[in-house]
Amino acid sequence: MTVLGTEADAGVDEVRVALAGLLRVCEPPSGALARFVGAQGPVAAWQAVLSRRAPRAVLSATAARVDGTDPAVLVGRARADLAAATRVGARLIGPDDAEWPTAVVSSFAGAVERGVRGAGPPMALYVRGRPLAGLPDRAVTVVGSRASSPYGTRVAGELAYEVARAGLVVVSGAAFGIDTAAHRSALQVVRSSAGTGRAVTVAVLACGIDRAYPEANRGLLEVIARHGSVVSEYPPGTVPARHRFLVRNRLIAAFGAGTVVVEAGRRSGTLSTAAAAEQLGRSVMAVPGPVTSAMSVGCHLLLADRFAQLVTGADDVLAVLGQSGRPTVGAGDGAAPGEDPRHPTDGLEPETARVYDAFPTRGWCSVQDLVVEAGLPVAAVMGSLAVLQLHGLADQDGPLWRRVRPERP
Amino acid sequence: MTVLGTEADAGVDEVRVALAGLLRVCEPPSGALARFVGAQGPVAAWQAVLSRRAPRAVLSATAARVDGTDPAVLVGRARADLAAATRVGARLIGPDDAEWPTAVVSSFAGAVERGVRGAGPPMALYVRGRPLAGLPDRAVTVVGSRASSPYGTRVAGELAYEVARAGLVVVSGAAFGIDTAAHRSALQVVRSSAGTGRAVTVAVLACGIDRAYPEANRGLLEVIARHGSVVSEYPPGTVPARHRFLVRNRLIAAFGAGTVVVEAGRRSGTLSTAAAAEQLGRSVMAVPGPVTSAMSVGCHLLLADRFAQLVTGADDVLAVLGQSGRPTVGAGDGAAPGEDPRHPTDGLEPETARVYDAFPTRGWCSVQDLVVEAGLPVAAVMGSLAVLQLHGLADQDGPLWRRVRPERP
Repeated sequence: MTVLGTEADAGVDEVRVALAGLLRVCEPPSGALARFVGAQGPVAAWQAVLSRRAPRAVLSATAARVDGTDPAVLVGRARADLAAATRVGARLIGPDDAEWPTAVVSSFAGAVERGVRGAGPPMALYVRGRPLAGLPDRAVTVVGSRASSPYGTRVAGELAYEVARAGLVVVSGAAFGIDTAAHRSALQVVRSSAGTGRAVTVAVLACGIDRAYPEANRGLLEVIARHGSVVSEYPPGTVPARHRFLVRNRLIAAFGAGTVVVEAGRRSGTLSTAAAAEQLGRSVMAVPGPVTSAMSVGCHLLLADRFAQLVTGADDVLAVLGQSGRPTVGAGDGAAPGEDPRHPTDGLEPETARVYDAFPTRGWCSVQDLVVEAGLPVAAVMGSLAVLQLHGLADQDGPLWRRVRPERP
Repeated sequence: MTVLGTEADAGVDEVRVALAGLLRVCEPPSGALARFVGAQGPVAAWQAVLSRRAPRAVLSATAARVDGTDPAVLVGRARADLAAATRVGARLIGPDDAEWPTAVVSSFAGAVERGVRGAGPPMALYVRGRPLAGLPDRAVTVVGSRASSPYGTRVAGELAYEVARAGLVVVSGAAFGIDTAAHRSALQVVRSSAGTGRAVTVAVLACGIDRAYPEANRGLLEVIARHGSVVSEYPPGTVPARHRFLVRNRLIAAFGAGTVVVEAGRRSGTLSTAAAAEQLGRSVMAVPGPVTSAMSVGCHLLLADRFAQLVTGADDVLAVLGQSGRPTVGAGDGAAPGEDPRHPTDGLEPETARVYDAFPTRGWCSVQDLVVEAGLPVAAVMGSLAVLQLHGLADQDGPLWRRVRPERP
């Protein structure tokens, strides 16, 4: 019953060929074609496209690659795509497959309804490696500048490692800089998650699944395919053109419960990922950096406009995503040496602290001296002295008092 | 008619003695005493305090330093304070003086009404140096950690220099670190403002006007007193106790149209200045920094809670305060080398850019090649090619086209 009538006995293959064909005849994203496929199913939609009996918008979206080409040639290309994918160990998944990220795809519906341009969902995905799972709920997107600074690389690495250790999938784009740091660091938790079979990191490509871009990251992509997943909605062989990075960025954003921008220049493409995350209703987060660094300008723009939530590390990210109890903006466990030491009066009532501070630096003084210096009533000073004595912070000798400095911890 | 009856012929002195006396008998801030002085005038209020015929709250606020002391002794102390101030070249100003910062003081009224603790206005101020002017409208408070990092010191310095150059007074607390950097950098514009007679920077002390704290900043305070103003609401001789820094911080915040926190540790006292600024309805701003720096934790806390507006330099500060047209979050004039280079298709329509990106890297191709690669209708590709040719980005040779890469600027 298909246009070519040769696949009636191979239902699964027929679906697969249809999905591959649909990906090839239309540059994503196409809301019109995606809707049509959703309504008709991939096989019927593919046949309708080939026989040019489809809604006007679908015909228009596919005209450039279909009109004037023999349907048999198009089917042959789809089969060739599947073969090319198989050669690199990739599979093509669609809405009927168990690992299809249904929650990711459905999140596009709202954006499409709100008229967000370029918000069409993927119709199918080429996948290498582990099954897609936990997207977007148990995933965090970590992105940033290709030309990252040592600071950004370090922060991205620590953040990705910690969120991966917390059991979340780290999603990124396999680019140089921040993306590479995020993938690599997530992969460091592989040992502990080896038995689970789950992906620790997902790379979404702006080119065919059979290509490595950048070429220097070919090895990294191989490792990701072993311990995580590599994903593309482009047919095999597709080259990474500039507009594809922007289109791909919507998937990177959609795959995570939130998007963290670690470093971004003023005009960084990373900002498009942040914008996509916002349009899809995901949390947008940004890591601040030195104002003297051009690599943090984009992050500061996001934060200054209150477009993004400031995060300083994995704890903050988990808190924003509701994956942990407590937001803790901070740098490590404590303050730097010499800064903000515990003060002896920390935790005391203000009046008590005032009396403590009213003591002369050395030697003894009377209650009246303290009354005058602190500017408090006698009764208040007496009460405070009792509290201080209790805490070992004041010493009494008859009518005279002196301050006791606590031992440094 | 005064309690001591010796000053009837020297009205001005009488006011001055009353103000000095009022400052001495009560540890600031005291909303009750300030209100009483506002209603009665300083001379009548001072006499009422001495003769203990004042509202209960006023008697209570002054009991510790008045009860049991001969009024003549208290008047003598007030006179001694004025003499001590004169010896260091300071004057005591009150609400009837031309340079009294009326707008600063009145801003406390709202905070007091809202029940903000410790929001009492100053009753009088000891001042060394130039007349107080432009507070708070033409002033910016710049504060931060004493243990500032080289990064923070640099950012504070550049920011303070630029806002001072824009004609604003830089207000700070003369502490080590950020405060010192802010005062020093503001003083660098002195040459250009020498003729104006206006203060370029104002230091608000947590001790008597005759004291230097920290001692190492004595020289800096002398320079500030020459080209700016040094201010204290404490009687001469008052030592800088811990609670006085917090109390003083409300004045630092009140003196500026906005408060910029450049660096602050997690538990920095600087955060109290930010809180005071917020309570007084002033803009609160914070400079981000590396998340790896303990000195930026306080700033990041302020930003993460959206308590402060992110600023990266003087331009941002002026924009927030409405003193300039345009907010420009950024690092200097441009991006770092290699990051975010101008792309040839910047400014082009998305479809046109897509056609540009669809060209093969080298060599010629047909319109149909572009149609397939870009996934756009022929008409759209032809239109885009015309636009690209117009911009010198595409070259035609009969039916074939190739991409032209623009010269690097």
